Amino acid sequence: MNKKMNILMFSGEYDKALAALILANSGKQMGIDVTMFFTFWGLCLVRDPKKISDEDKSAYEKMFANLTPKGIEESPLSKMNFAGVGKKMLLEMMEENDTPSIVDFLNGAIKKGVKLYGCKLSLEIMGFKEDELLKEVKIITAEEYLKNALESDIQLFI
Amino acid sequence: MNKKMNILMFSGEYDKALAALILANSGKQMGIDVTMFFTFWGLCLVRDPKKISDEDKSAYEKMFANLTPKGIEESPLSKMNFAGVGKKMLLEMMEENDTPSIVDFLNGAIKKGVKLYGCKLSLEIMGFKEDELLKEVKIITAEEYLKNALESDIQLFI
Amino acid sequence: MNKKMNILMFSGEYDKALAALILANSGKQMGIDVTMFFTFWGLCLVRDPKKISDEDKSAYEKMFANLTPKGIEESPLSKMNFAGVGKKMLLEMMEENDTPSIVDFLNGAIKKGVKLYGCKLSLEIMGFKEDELLKEVKIITAEEYLKNALESDIQLFI
Repeated sequence: MNKKMNILMFSGEYDKALAALILANSGKQMGIDVTMFFTFWGLCLVRDPKKISDEDKSAYEKMFANLTPKGIEESPLSKMNFAGVGKKMLLEMMEENDTPSIVDFLNGAIKKGVKLYGCKLSLEIMGFKEDELLKEVKIITAEEYLKNALESDIQLFI
Repeated sequence: MNKKMNILMFSGEYDKALAALILANSGKQMGIDVTMFFTFWGLCLVRDPKKISDEDKSAYEKMFANLTPKGIEESPLSKMNFAGVGKKMLLEMMEENDTPSIVDFLNGAIKKGVKLYGCKLSLEIMGFKEDELLKEVKIITAEEYLKNALESDIQLFI
Repeated sequence: MNKKMNILMFSGEYDKALAALILANSGKQMGIDVTMFFTFWGLCLVRDPKKISDEDKSAYEKMFANLTPKGIEESPLSKMNFAGVGKKMLLEMMEENDTPSIVDFLNGAIKKGVKLYGCKLSLEIMGFKEDELLKEVKIITAEEYLKNALESDIQLFI
């Protein structure tokens, strides 16, 4: 189709990530070239729960790393989370409707070739390390994001 | 003007809906073709309070339907809601300034011909039924949204 | 470069403002023409703490003016604010990494020539006065925002 979509994923919430990944998967199915750029809380969505480590981290960075969701499945709802009850309710409803899980959508996006980038500056601020993220995530600068966004037909900040 | 704006309305909050509807009305006044696509919490904004029913719903769907705002007037503020006090304050300030109410903006948008769409997959996940929504809302898929967004000059995720 | 980016700044939160200002500064460094349009809570980010006054305000407007952040440094985090503890943690981590402060980014944006606009209708609704804002902020209507956004290559709602 020769069209491009660029999603800047700032939020680290389950429902927003689900919306973004549905768009990414649908876009790829239509032949659109899709890029996701993870910044700030969005980086929590692409942490690899099996690779998180305290090594080389300051006291604040360790604290912060422990207070934030370790991967996409731990991410909370943006609304009505009710300490996890609202999210459980949503997950049950998704199961009733045979909706794929968020991990299915993430893996689908990777398999279909959605490009995943992480923001260099955010990574430094949050104290996360590149090798704690999913191996498909490449680190780029804000300038590189802007270059990509300028070439895209759709840009969304989520 | 032959220009198009596409708003993806993910949030179900009063202040964000107000911002979106002000843009939609202003756009139409300038001759821009405006489309709003309601997904997730945004669907609560286009529920018709007079048509909400428990029929054909699972236990979770009934619970969820009762915990979420029944139409645009019930929607909370995204910030400083303070159990409704912040919203009441904002409404009083809008009245002092003779700002039209959110329902006026929604009806204005409909009258001016803003196209309202609901997301098929979100509707299923949330357990809402098409006939519980405002009659102006047509249900489409994420692919149809993307097709429309690709043809638009402005795309916003709100 | 002859390219344009338009950021609609709806949110009044520290982390979202930081993301927006990093994009604005990076864009300018690349030769992109950058416009920021502050609406609703976003207006709190461009209040000048030294110029806030109760003059000519109704009871509700005075209350509201006192409950909202007085300038960009007072703005809370969108997540994990924990009554200020989360924000303090983030600030410490930024200092450890020699990341410039948010005021540095705001001043950098102004110095580089990022255009700052405030939304006329939001200003009225929130009860803020034009002369309480940073002097670089010009008040425009939603229609003027849309005209600018239509001419832009990137539009983001933050």
